[in-house]
Amino acid sequence: MNTLTADTLFKITYGMYIVTSKYGGQASGFVSNTAMQITSQPIRIALCASKKNFTTELIQKSKKVAFSALSMKADQKLIGHFGFKSGRDINKFSDFKYITGETGIPIVEEDAMAWFEGQVESELDMDTHILFIVNIENGKIVDPQGDAMTYNYYREVLRGKAPAHAPTHNLNINIEKKEEKMDNKAIWICDVCGYEYDPAKGDPDSGIAPGTAFEDIPDDWVCPICGVDKSNFSKK
Amino acid sequence: MNTLTADTLFKITYGMYIVTSKYGGQASGFVSNTAMQITSQPIRIALCASKKNFTTELIQKSKKVAFSALSMKADQKLIGHFGFKSGRDINKFSDFKYITGETGIPIVEEDAMAWFEGQVESELDMDTHILFIVNIENGKIVDPQGDAMTYNYYREVLRGKAPAHAPTHNLNINIEKKEEKMDNKAIWICDVCGYEYDPAKGDPDSGIAPGTAFEDIPDDWVCPICGVDKSNFSKK
Repeated sequence: MNTLTADTLFKITYGMYIVTSKYGGQASGFVSNTAMQITSQPIRIALCASKKNFTTELIQKSKKVAFSALSMKADQKLIGHFGFKSGRDINKFSDFKYITGETGIPIVEEDAMAWFEGQVESELDMDTHILFIVNIENGKIVDPQGDAMTYNYYREVLRGKAPAHAPTHNLNINIEKKEEKMDNKAIWICDVCGYEYDPAKGDPDSGIAPGTAFEDIPDDWVCPICGVDKSNFSKK
Repeated sequence: MNTLTADTLFKITYGMYIVTSKYGGQASGFVSNTAMQITSQPIRIALCASKKNFTTELIQKSKKVAFSALSMKADQKLIGHFGFKSGRDINKFSDFKYITGETGIPIVEEDAMAWFEGQVESELDMDTHILFIVNIENGKIVDPQGDAMTYNYYREVLRGKAPAHAPTHNLNINIEKKEEKMDNKAIWICDVCGYEYDPAKGDPDSGIAPGTAFEDIPDDWVCPICGVDKSNFSKK
């Protein structure tokens, strides 16, 4: 009997990464959960990237890539910035603090546990995605003591959802609600990234106190994940 | 400046898996931390396996593979059984409870969060390892509520070390000691798998109470990770 459901795939454990590249003066990055070491001599990492990501094109042209393993304490806005906007539309590094690696690629060091950079050794066409095999040439531990952000933590605790073209975006993600709704306090969902605004929690990082109804949030407030305004939210 | 150290690579997050296969009446399995989803249409998973593993040969010949994502509560002995003995020497399923998948492969269901099975679509030769691209045909959630065992948890909390030919075995693993030693209570290390016997903790699962010195453990006791006897332990 076939018992495979979408939720089954979420039992695989991932970290959370910002993957970056640069080619011909253009730099970009995206949020990924798919990176793993495959050999130690040489140090090779497999990275998976959607063909729809602008960064994927930059990696294919430059053959250079970097990635940063996010800390559990990483700012949600970082994920919104890199995960839910396209590098075709905005320069993700124009107003963003970064370091430049030996490969010349901008690297996200803040909010990272560690970062890596290297050269693409080969790439595999997987229809919707490219699987890159990367020779790691350099790396650094940024936060030796902290805990890495896991994809599971991101999904369940930060209530994020996978962007539509992530490898793990395979439908009807049912995030378990660990809290009960308050009466008369509707939850609103961001149409762009799936972030759920819960009045019981508010959005203290943006100055919205717990207990604030969605309707009472000032109009200049934006989604803490992807940065769109209130008009992009729908009542749950 | 190159700042890459072995510890840097441990900031990548992994789960823990038992990968199994069968060919011509021979079945085997090994412990892995390297599995990730790469596409959702079709559902493809990348799995990395050492060429030294007997199971790798079985996967290459049968083109069939299964893997089980371990629960945080998984018995350490399971990891010892599959992770530190070779399927060339013992039949890992002879005295072991398993289910048989639609592919005909034995699957470890007990202690798993979920399992998957499928057909190898392609394989990439990575010198010391093979990277398998697997089309997932079936799977099942075994433990919907539990937490997955992460490689980090395995390394730090269960004090396991990577077998010598795991992708992440790249030397001088320094496991942080989260507990202090008791005076006059020496810690003993398993030469085979690196398990540390700490008298302060004992090995209650095997009937060894906390406070039992290594010398006072009965001679028929075996390493809870890899199953070797006391003669394979060295004082730390």
